[in-house]
Amino acid sequence: MRIDVAATWQEARFLDLRCSTAVAIDVLRATSTIVTAIQAGARRVIPTETPEQARSAAARVGKGDCVLGGERGGLRIEGFDLGNSPREYTPFTVGGKTLVLSTTNGTQALAAALQAETVCVAALLNVGSVADRLIASRRDIAIICAGTEGRVSLDDLYCAGMLVSRIVSPGNARDISDGARLAMDWYVSHAGASLDVLASCIHGRRLAELGFQRDLEYCSGVDVITEVPIWEKDCLVRS
Amino acid sequence: MRIDVAATWQEARFLDLRCSTAVAIDVLRATSTIVTAIQAGARRVIPTETPEQARSAAARVGKGDCVLGGERGGLRIEGFDLGNSPREYTPFTVGGKTLVLSTTNGTQALAAALQAETVCVAALLNVGSVADRLIASRRDIAIICAGTEGRVSLDDLYCAGMLVSRIVSPGNARDISDGARLAMDWYVSHAGASLDVLASCIHGRRLAELGFQRDLEYCSGVDVITEVPIWEKDCLVRS
Repeated sequence: MRIDVAATWQEARFLDLRCSTAVAIDVLRATSTIVTAIQAGARRVIPTETPEQARSAAARVGKGDCVLGGERGGLRIEGFDLGNSPREYTPFTVGGKTLVLSTTNGTQALAAALQAETVCVAALLNVGSVADRLIASRRDIAIICAGTEGRVSLDDLYCAGMLVSRIVSPGNARDISDGARLAMDWYVSHAGASLDVLASCIHGRRLAELGFQRDLEYCSGVDVITEVPIWEKDCLVRS
Repeated sequence: MRIDVAATWQEARFLDLRCSTAVAIDVLRATSTIVTAIQAGARRVIPTETPEQARSAAARVGKGDCVLGGERGGLRIEGFDLGNSPREYTPFTVGGKTLVLSTTNGTQALAAALQAETVCVAALLNVGSVADRLIASRRDIAIICAGTEGRVSLDDLYCAGMLVSRIVSPGNARDISDGARLAMDWYVSHAGASLDVLASCIHGRRLAELGFQRDLEYCSGVDVITEVPIWEKDCLVRS
């Protein structure tokens, strides 16, 4: 079993995803939001890149069954029902609904993952359940961090490293790439400090400036959700 | 003063290099070779991407004044004078000559760096001299790792992290990117283990399989060369 980590979705095109399970990670905040929405009872999540694509997808679904969510520059898109704050995604707002979600880096990480046989979504919130699933699948693993504007983002890398560390236990050596080793080492040297990591990374500091401090606290929660959203045909559903 | 690290030359296009000093790093082996050749008395180094471009450049320089070096898949290119083993670059082989060097990732890292005002070349061999120069320049710093085939390569990231750690001293907080923080943290947790790092990273293991174990030993030497090759017009020269 090979384990690989791409630090940005742009780097993912250099990964060999055939025969792999791919995991998309965008801790701040797309995959934290997706995981939360699925746990809250959303029937499915359709990720889209642009607000226009989101509106078209929502029109196809039909207004009564659909919730439009998403952000640009961290803020809710005008005319959308919800932003990209995972705390907005509750049984009341998304239960039984189709969520159409427009984000930038998170959607691209998912798109990059779609070359793989199986695709799932991870955040710190559900990292343990994702690890269990990956161990059970016995397939090669490709973890694709969203990153921020083409750059390494430590929130994502921390989550990727935590995931690798849950799979590669001591004495259980596997074929891991330099990227996976880097992520795991960095996670191990910051273990137990998820809120510090989220609050001190560039992306987290920007969100705090925008007033989303409580999102950082929420997204830093580890193993509080058991759902593992998986890709089926053209959307994410509960597995 | 901002400090930024791109883990691959592909990531470098997302850096803002204006007003920066850019540093290109390809420890295994292009920048180790360039630093060694300049120290050995090469008059200048012309990096080229393809063997054909190298032959054209060599023809322009003239046969008597020129040495053709380079590798593909780690091995010397047919018809070239030297490969990419830095230990081949001695006063006897390159003293007073123009070196035309064809490598893949190292040349691309340099090409990516050329958007910056000033460009220099670093390896573990000359890391201290490069750090001194960067501190003295008081400019923003962009460190561009070559990486290997689009992926993070721990040999380069180790060198980048060592360089950052020499510039960012405790109590001397600076504006550093997530990528620079990652490189520095990973270096610090592996300080004093440069040969172990080079021998255990994916690229180093591949070179060892090809019989270049002694290159790993040579390239793991820290602060053994004082020269800092810098870019001038269309080639690298001693500073």
